Amino acid sequence: MSKKIGKQTFRPEKPPVLISSAAVAGPFEGQGPLKDYYDHIYTDLLAGERTFESAEKEMLLNAAFTCLNKAGKAPQEVDLFLAGDLLNQTITSGFSALELAIPYFGLYGACSTSMEGLALATMLVDGGFADLVLAATSSHNTTAERQYRYPSEYGVHRKPTAQWTVTGAGAGLVAREGEGPRITHVTVGKVVDFGIKDVNNLGSAMAPAAALTLVQHFADTGHGPDYYDLILTGDLGKFGQSLTIKLATSRGGFDLTKNYRDCGLMIYDTQRQDVHAGGSGCGASAMVTYGYLYRKLLQGKLKRILVAATGALHSPTSFQQGQDIPAICHAVAIEA
Amino acid sequence: MSKKIGKQTFRPEKPPVLISSAAVAGPFEGQGPLKDYYDHIYTDLLAGERTFESAEKEMLLNAAFTCLNKAGKAPQEVDLFLAGDLLNQTITSGFSALELAIPYFGLYGACSTSMEGLALATMLVDGGFADLVLAATSSHNTTAERQYRYPSEYGVHRKPTAQWTVTGAGAGLVAREGEGPRITHVTVGKVVDFGIKDVNNLGSAMAPAAALTLVQHFADTGHGPDYYDLILTGDLGKFGQSLTIKLATSRGGFDLTKNYRDCGLMIYDTQRQDVHAGGSGCGASAMVTYGYLYRKLLQGKLKRILVAATGALHSPTSFQQGQDIPAICHAVAIEA
Repeated sequence: MSKKIGKQTFRPEKPPVLISSAAVAGPFEGQGPLKDYYDHIYTDLLAGERTFESAEKEMLLNAAFTCLNKAGKAPQEVDLFLAGDLLNQTITSGFSALELAIPYFGLYGACSTSMEGLALATMLVDGGFADLVLAATSSHNTTAERQYRYPSEYGVHRKPTAQWTVTGAGAGLVAREGEGPRITHVTVGKVVDFGIKDVNNLGSAMAPAAALTLVQHFADTGHGPDYYDLILTGDLGKFGQSLTIKLATSRGGFDLTKNYRDCGLMIYDTQRQDVHAGGSGCGASAMVTYGYLYRKLLQGKLKRILVAATGALHSPTSFQQGQDIPAICHAVAIEA
Repeated sequence: MSKKIGKQTFRPEKPPVLISSAAVAGPFEGQGPLKDYYDHIYTDLLAGERTFESAEKEMLLNAAFTCLNKAGKAPQEVDLFLAGDLLNQTITSGFSALELAIPYFGLYGACSTSMEGLALATMLVDGGFADLVLAATSSHNTTAERQYRYPSEYGVHRKPTAQWTVTGAGAGLVAREGEGPRITHVTVGKVVDFGIKDVNNLGSAMAPAAALTLVQHFADTGHGPDYYDLILTGDLGKFGQSLTIKLATSRGGFDLTKNYRDCGLMIYDTQRQDVHAGGSGCGASAMVTYGYLYRKLLQGKLKRILVAATGALHSPTSFQQGQDIPAICHAVAIEA
């Protein structure tokens, strides 16, 4: 009675419940088309803090506490906190775990961290180790830009394939019992490398990971794309999205043209907000999943969704040393 | 029939088996008192690679493949790979996962990652999600020094409380069935902050996390320190070790003076090898656990051990911004 089905997919015996979620957004994201689905929109990037790094922590904690409050739970009632972010040594998550005072496992999956956390939360709850697990992640445009690229003040010209790191955070609370949509399948990704070296084209570097994980999910579960009302990738942007559609066809014969969207493209009005190829960052899939999608699932507007979050696993050092950009994608199926 | 006992401890229903392990060491570590317990000792820090970062990856992969070989397992037979390291964006682990091609969850717990990985592997196997999980971690003196502090070539004077980052890697293979010592308890740490800001005194910053997790483990399980043949911390060094002994007494009334050692102090002959306060890094607890301790458990020289690995969750950025150094500690009980 293995809970592993096929090669990379895991099916909980009794699908855990996503009993609560919350998403908070930065000022620019708060002007986007999903603005009505955020629990809080910050009016400035510093969020009242002295540094952008502290602001990101404030955002992650706001999402976490709002998520707990909605479920009527205190941090002391939560068995485990799973979190990760893009900052070196994942300081947003570590310092947030300090304030939450919940036993903590730190994760690093770059922008795949949102679904890595939700996947592990599902497995730990269904494995009988926890009744309540809080999963959270965040990203911040200014902290990410100055760490990975250049301080914004440099005014460096951006390429058309470049994406805009999303400012915001999301959190979800996974429980053994309760009301809400259930997490029915988890597909854990392998790291892949398709030879992309351009750090201004991360969508294309991550698209093969997305396509392979989606194809594997369909093969492992026997559920084709039609099974889902909506299939989402995390932050591939427009170039990564079109590449994913092509690869899903060429690698698995699956048609993603009907019900597939990318969270990074949903957050912004790409006609009006200049984000080049779209949004990126751990926050993208977390804000869309824990803000917009969760409400749609509760309302019955969506019944079955598959969220596939991708992460680029390079670092500035690996890039400078001439390495390719490896990527990973974890997919989580949520059903109302 | 919860698998959670007390506040932070998790007890698998059927304790998973550590069926294999391996440890590899850098040249300096290979001159230390545990030299006979490593599977491979490198003769130079570059390990035949072009960069120190690639060398660290080579070491982690060597430990991983050696561990698999000893168990007669191929990577394709392994359900999940859990790994993390100290480098920004944990590139050692991500690039290793690419070569292993095993579905991968990336972790970040600084030097607590060794036991974070082993704890999660235990939970995922006992939860029914995997038959075989490979957990691994690494550190490298030169990659860590130039990332966290200064390139070695600067010749910066070191403080007496400073520790020496260990070069090496370790891997363990956790299985549902098989021969070997079993993982009987896991205590997941909370992040704590005792106000230390000195990045040259990480042992003291991490000691409170070690003491609190050990005290919680004893309280949750009802097993006092006497239950174990040996209790280990990961890389506290001599100042952190003595502080842990004091805090275990003052916070819990437990006597750690009889059977407690620190992995960072075991790796080097501290009389002959100048490592100031001792060794540190993810590799420290991994090399001692997966090299020395595992063999002692197989030989019956040790029957019950408790490995408590600590991690300092700061970053150069958080330090420069005046933040304290928060720390965490995860403890894993292994019984022959």
